[in-house]
Amino acid sequence: MGMVGGGQGSFIGAVHRIAAALDQQIELTAGVFSRDEANSAATAARLHVPRSYKSYEEMAAAEAALPADQRIDFVSIVTPNNAHFGPSKAFLEAGIHVVCDKPLALTLEQAEELVKIVEKSGLVFALTHNYTGHPMVRQARKMFASGELGVVRKVLVEYLQDWLMTPQEKHGSKQASWRTNPAESGIGGALGDIGTHALNLVEYVTGDPLVSICADTSIFLPDRKLDEDVNALMRFEGGGKGVLTVSQIACGEENGLTLRVYGSEGAISWAQENPNYLHVYKHGQPRQTYSRGNAGYLSAEATAVTRIPTGHPEGYLEAFATIYVDAVEAIRRHIAGNPMTRAEYKFPTVYDGLRGMQFIYKAVESAEKGAVWVLMPERS
Amino acid sequence: MGMVGGGQGSFIGAVHRIAAALDQQIELTAGVFSRDEANSAATAARLHVPRSYKSYEEMAAAEAALPADQRIDFVSIVTPNNAHFGPSKAFLEAGIHVVCDKPLALTLEQAEELVKIVEKSGLVFALTHNYTGHPMVRQARKMFASGELGVVRKVLVEYLQDWLMTPQEKHGSKQASWRTNPAESGIGGALGDIGTHALNLVEYVTGDPLVSICADTSIFLPDRKLDEDVNALMRFEGGGKGVLTVSQIACGEENGLTLRVYGSEGAISWAQENPNYLHVYKHGQPRQTYSRGNAGYLSAEATAVTRIPTGHPEGYLEAFATIYVDAVEAIRRHIAGNPMTRAEYKFPTVYDGLRGMQFIYKAVESAEKGAVWVLMPERS
Amino acid sequence: MGMVGGGQGSFIGAVHRIAAALDQQIELTAGVFSRDEANSAATAARLHVPRSYKSYEEMAAAEAALPADQRIDFVSIVTPNNAHFGPSKAFLEAGIHVVCDKPLALTLEQAEELVKIVEKSGLVFALTHNYTGHPMVRQARKMFASGELGVVRKVLVEYLQDWLMTPQEKHGSKQASWRTNPAESGIGGALGDIGTHALNLVEYVTGDPLVSICADTSIFLPDRKLDEDVNALMRFEGGGKGVLTVSQIACGEENGLTLRVYGSEGAISWAQENPNYLHVYKHGQPRQTYSRGNAGYLSAEATAVTRIPTGHPEGYLEAFATIYVDAVEAIRRHIAGNPMTRAEYKFPTVYDGLRGMQFIYKAVESAEKGAVWVLMPERS
Amino acid sequence: MGMVGGGQGSFIGAVHRIAAALDQQIELTAGVFSRDEANSAATAARLHVPRSYKSYEEMAAAEAALPADQRIDFVSIVTPNNAHFGPSKAFLEAGIHVVCDKPLALTLEQAEELVKIVEKSGLVFALTHNYTGHPMVRQARKMFASGELGVVRKVLVEYLQDWLMTPQEKHGSKQASWRTNPAESGIGGALGDIGTHALNLVEYVTGDPLVSICADTSIFLPDRKLDEDVNALMRFEGGGKGVLTVSQIACGEENGLTLRVYGSEGAISWAQENPNYLHVYKHGQPRQTYSRGNAGYLSAEATAVTRIPTGHPEGYLEAFATIYVDAVEAIRRHIAGNPMTRAEYKFPTVYDGLRGMQFIYKAVESAEKGAVWVLMPERS
Repeated sequence: MGMVGGGQGSFIGAVHRIAAALDQQIELTAGVFSRDEANSAATAARLHVPRSYKSYEEMAAAEAALPADQRIDFVSIVTPNNAHFGPSKAFLEAGIHVVCDKPLALTLEQAEELVKIVEKSGLVFALTHNYTGHPMVRQARKMFASGELGVVRKVLVEYLQDWLMTPQEKHGSKQASWRTNPAESGIGGALGDIGTHALNLVEYVTGDPLVSICADTSIFLPDRKLDEDVNALMRFEGGGKGVLTVSQIACGEENGLTLRVYGSEGAISWAQENPNYLHVYKHGQPRQTYSRGNAGYLSAEATAVTRIPTGHPEGYLEAFATIYVDAVEAIRRHIAGNPMTRAEYKFPTVYDGLRGMQFIYKAVESAEKGAVWVLMPERS
Repeated sequence: MGMVGGGQGSFIGAVHRIAAALDQQIELTAGVFSRDEANSAATAARLHVPRSYKSYEEMAAAEAALPADQRIDFVSIVTPNNAHFGPSKAFLEAGIHVVCDKPLALTLEQAEELVKIVEKSGLVFALTHNYTGHPMVRQARKMFASGELGVVRKVLVEYLQDWLMTPQEKHGSKQASWRTNPAESGIGGALGDIGTHALNLVEYVTGDPLVSICADTSIFLPDRKLDEDVNALMRFEGGGKGVLTVSQIACGEENGLTLRVYGSEGAISWAQENPNYLHVYKHGQPRQTYSRGNAGYLSAEATAVTRIPTGHPEGYLEAFATIYVDAVEAIRRHIAGNPMTRAEYKFPTVYDGLRGMQFIYKAVESAEKGAVWVLMPERS
Repeated sequence: MGMVGGGQGSFIGAVHRIAAALDQQIELTAGVFSRDEANSAATAARLHVPRSYKSYEEMAAAEAALPADQRIDFVSIVTPNNAHFGPSKAFLEAGIHVVCDKPLALTLEQAEELVKIVEKSGLVFALTHNYTGHPMVRQARKMFASGELGVVRKVLVEYLQDWLMTPQEKHGSKQASWRTNPAESGIGGALGDIGTHALNLVEYVTGDPLVSICADTSIFLPDRKLDEDVNALMRFEGGGKGVLTVSQIACGEENGLTLRVYGSEGAISWAQENPNYLHVYKHGQPRQTYSRGNAGYLSAEATAVTRIPTGHPEGYLEAFATIYVDAVEAIRRHIAGNPMTRAEYKFPTVYDGLRGMQFIYKAVESAEKGAVWVLMPERS
Repeated sequence: MGMVGGGQGSFIGAVHRIAAALDQQIELTAGVFSRDEANSAATAARLHVPRSYKSYEEMAAAEAALPADQRIDFVSIVTPNNAHFGPSKAFLEAGIHVVCDKPLALTLEQAEELVKIVEKSGLVFALTHNYTGHPMVRQARKMFASGELGVVRKVLVEYLQDWLMTPQEKHGSKQASWRTNPAESGIGGALGDIGTHALNLVEYVTGDPLVSICADTSIFLPDRKLDEDVNALMRFEGGGKGVLTVSQIACGEENGLTLRVYGSEGAISWAQENPNYLHVYKHGQPRQTYSRGNAGYLSAEATAVTRIPTGHPEGYLEAFATIYVDAVEAIRRHIAGNPMTRAEYKFPTVYDGLRGMQFIYKAVESAEKGAVWVLMPERS
């Protein structure tokens, strides 16, 4: 594996490295960790990465030129949003598979172009909507796919944080700085950073696409240019309705991503902050708590991505690692000359990335028009 | 106390009787418990109520004609929505104070007229938005009023049930029957039954009035005419935004009324199903759980309405009883010739009732226009 | 109903009055509320109690002399432990039924004598181990009685408080004063006050009697004479084992009474502070949460004692009221000439009271010998 | 790193490998993974481990003979209890640092001898009582060490499981087989497997040694020879008392390790199944929930061992990895010629291992004598 981004001051770079290392199938052997050369070199040295480059263009070219058994099999792109498209394009065109952080790109246009590049390349492109790696999220998805919970009637998804309720970006926080800067983040603030996770989780679990949205966005702190908070109404293809609410200024909230879906036959509730449990409701029956790791009653999809026994909590990093495991499996199949079909991919793809960008653009459009209903494009 | 409604098959009548009896200040001495005379008489006999009448008109006249020390001091009206206005008017015009269940009336016009009747009478009129009787709700209100939680930025209120996810009204449920019948309930279904509670709770706690709403209502079961489910965006006078979501078809939910309010300095979270706790968040500090009954750190407003020590749970009936205690205090003051001012009332009044009717009408208007923003009238 | 005790400064007197009033079947018409005559008279006046007496002896004699339709049907004794025996004896011997607070008496000898007095009288004697009135406790009892949870293997019962972790009795707390005074409380401190509740709950739910106990008691505050904290091992007749831990100095605990029972086929967990739920475990199945009020899956025993719909919490007072409802039912049957058999009683009786006193004495004996095993007498 | 044990059918071997890999500082380069040669070789091949040996004796000798920059720096011993002593001794005597799973050894004698071997060697010996690696456990320890919670008065520790409530060992479970076999596990069943974790956690957090214990052990399933369930009373050096209860037959429990410690000034509560939170109680104040990752109010000890932001849950593997990180730091210091003092070690050592064996032996002694009090040896 190679890496683009993830130098000093990055949060998500270290997460990707742990996620990649956890299952002992991936070795980090090349990278350009920062646009700052000193930072990049220092990071490479600290991490004992043998091949350190000065730019992603150089890296893509050099790696592609190496013999197949020496070069990286894939690159992991962990930069801010404005540096997703360039590296993705470069590596794909160099014949190297890509794992990329979300959202997919800085603009919708980039996203649309990247879909074409991926399609043309035939390579694996995985987007780290990491919450889809949780066993109990996969259990929920399976339960809706099987029909046992009926038709979706109501969806309540939340992603609530408070870390931007003070102007961190004015006090040296690199994380806050790029996330509040349209030049680096794009047109979405909370929408892009956490709203895309929320929508992806909804569509992943229910399989029922969003068809229209009415989004009310807010900025409370002075000098902020991007949405800090969003409340949105949703309508789904299957006739269900719902609410999406995300915030980065909701005092006391840490990473409050929760999903509740009420179907005509049953319902589920899941919370990222205690992700080992899935609450399952059937009308007129006692509420049930499904617990990760119980092969006796969980689906194969849920038990396949569990590493330790029930009652020993897995967390954020384990689910993130599962995205890597899934991507590596697809890359191995590709290398073996037997590439997976899109239906076989277990991880979010470039199409999920496009979907996220459409969501950001349509939510911003809705908000700018006064929080009116706008139609979502069909899912690719 | 007299009672109108609450015969065989009623749910809320028994609740009012327990609430009135609990603190041993109120005796039920007269009533017309049903339009069905046999039901009414049987109920009176079962409850050992000395004076049983055939109609509320008869009752209002007869009670008013009794000497002051023999007649009822107030009447409790616990009928379906379509029978709130008539009895309220009759008793007020007969000089008898009123406690009335919510929503205030069948129509907005009735509500507006009732405001005038109450004002003209100078009598006490209490509306049983019972959740405002919870000690920890009063604590929350006090905390916003004091300013310690800052300006309201985000409000998330939910009231989720599932008891109407099957067509109970087709199988003999009296409760389901009138609540799904516009002739008895008015133009709101879940909106009137539980949505009014949700909005009342929000405005009671924050003191920050709703200024506009965008409501998306749904009917999922065949043959239903009233909304079963509502998702709505809210905007408040102080600049905050929010979401209101209510449902009577959310599988697995019982009486999931929860309120979360995020201010610029702190936040609260409260849940009706476990009402003895108020979760309080301050940015950068550990989350706190305020527990009912702790005079050491709770406000006087919260401790004044507690009957038992901390850790011994109070519930729905105790909070309901507090509305009666508060109303009785106002009635006593009135009888003593020293009536309370509106500001002194601790219980919801006819103005809260009007507000609820405005909410129903504006939400329905929004929904009928396709879930667009509509302005709320100013609070009276 | 008459009352002995419950004057100014009493906590439990007001609780009994609310519990008795809640279901509107009982009227308080006579009482001696305090040994202090002024306090007693003032309380009678405040509560509008028509017949106020100067002593329980006078009251028992005077009430017994009244015509049957005028005198009290039963008396409620809500005094400290040292004043349970005298009034109980006096009223029973006057032919008046008794509801008495726990523990049964000051000494084991009094308890044993009271059993004989009750048996000789043939009257109803109810002891307010109020937690047995909770619907979900009755559900748990039913589930063990039915055998569906198998044989009891492990019992963990806790009752944790912290209100005596400071020397309240030195600062004017009447509650703390008598509870820390052996002359008023007897030989048990926390053992008598809350330990008896814990043991009663265990035996009530499992039906499996305690056969031996090894109790380690502690006093941490200076000048205290009675146990503040107890940890005890238990062995049961059916072969199960367990732990009982109670404390009045466990910092941060309010009324943390919890019961967990693990059987060979299933298990339950219940907590007094959120009593509307019973957690039910079956090996290899998802955990279930039974919720009060769901007639569809709860036993008749649990639904019979519920007043309001599921999701509207009932609490401490409602369960307490259920003991009164049950006692009144037995008293009515007695008055009707068709007295209940002991097996028909749904409420704790004088035998439960004797059991509690045996528990206190055996636990103290164990502790005094260095926390060694001592045998419990057989249950009467 | 080398590994002894952890072949096909092992649970804890894979856990150690993930824990070692997670922070990307450790590479697995040698091993003997099973006494079964085929299993061992297959595991080595699957894991791409370059140097595979046939026995630990061979491995210790061969690795010691390699140049320092080629041989393993330490070995990880992840075998059943009966195979801890031999490999530990062999590697220590070969000059190789050791990380060993718990309990320390098969017998108390082995444990005592191993202490001497470690002391003589001067090498690092880390015992994987992994729960001490949780940030919030370190926070709790710090709070007791600082004195802010006062003197320990009451300790309640539980470790409840149900996986042995059916005779798994008769149905091919390798895990159940060795844990129920005295020849492989030693004289403790649940005592050794989970009881040692519970005691270690108590002494780690409070710093207050156990001085005597009264343990009641049980076997419920036929043909079992080792304790399945233990209830024990504890007394501590500082005057506090407590309860330890562990079970492997507690229906519905998964890995219910919880610790509650009540001090004279405050209390804490922590649960392994949701380990990112520490509940902190101060008398008369609202309960607080400390959440992992909040550098603003957590101690340096707690924040030093956190990898990701608050609200993104860490779990079992992350805490386990922290033990490896801490051990590697000590090993690096040793290699650098500047070995840590015992006081500098952040991880459990051979003395904790000895303590665990003393606990097993004293608890068994207590139980065999009828659950009487026995003194613990002083902590080394």
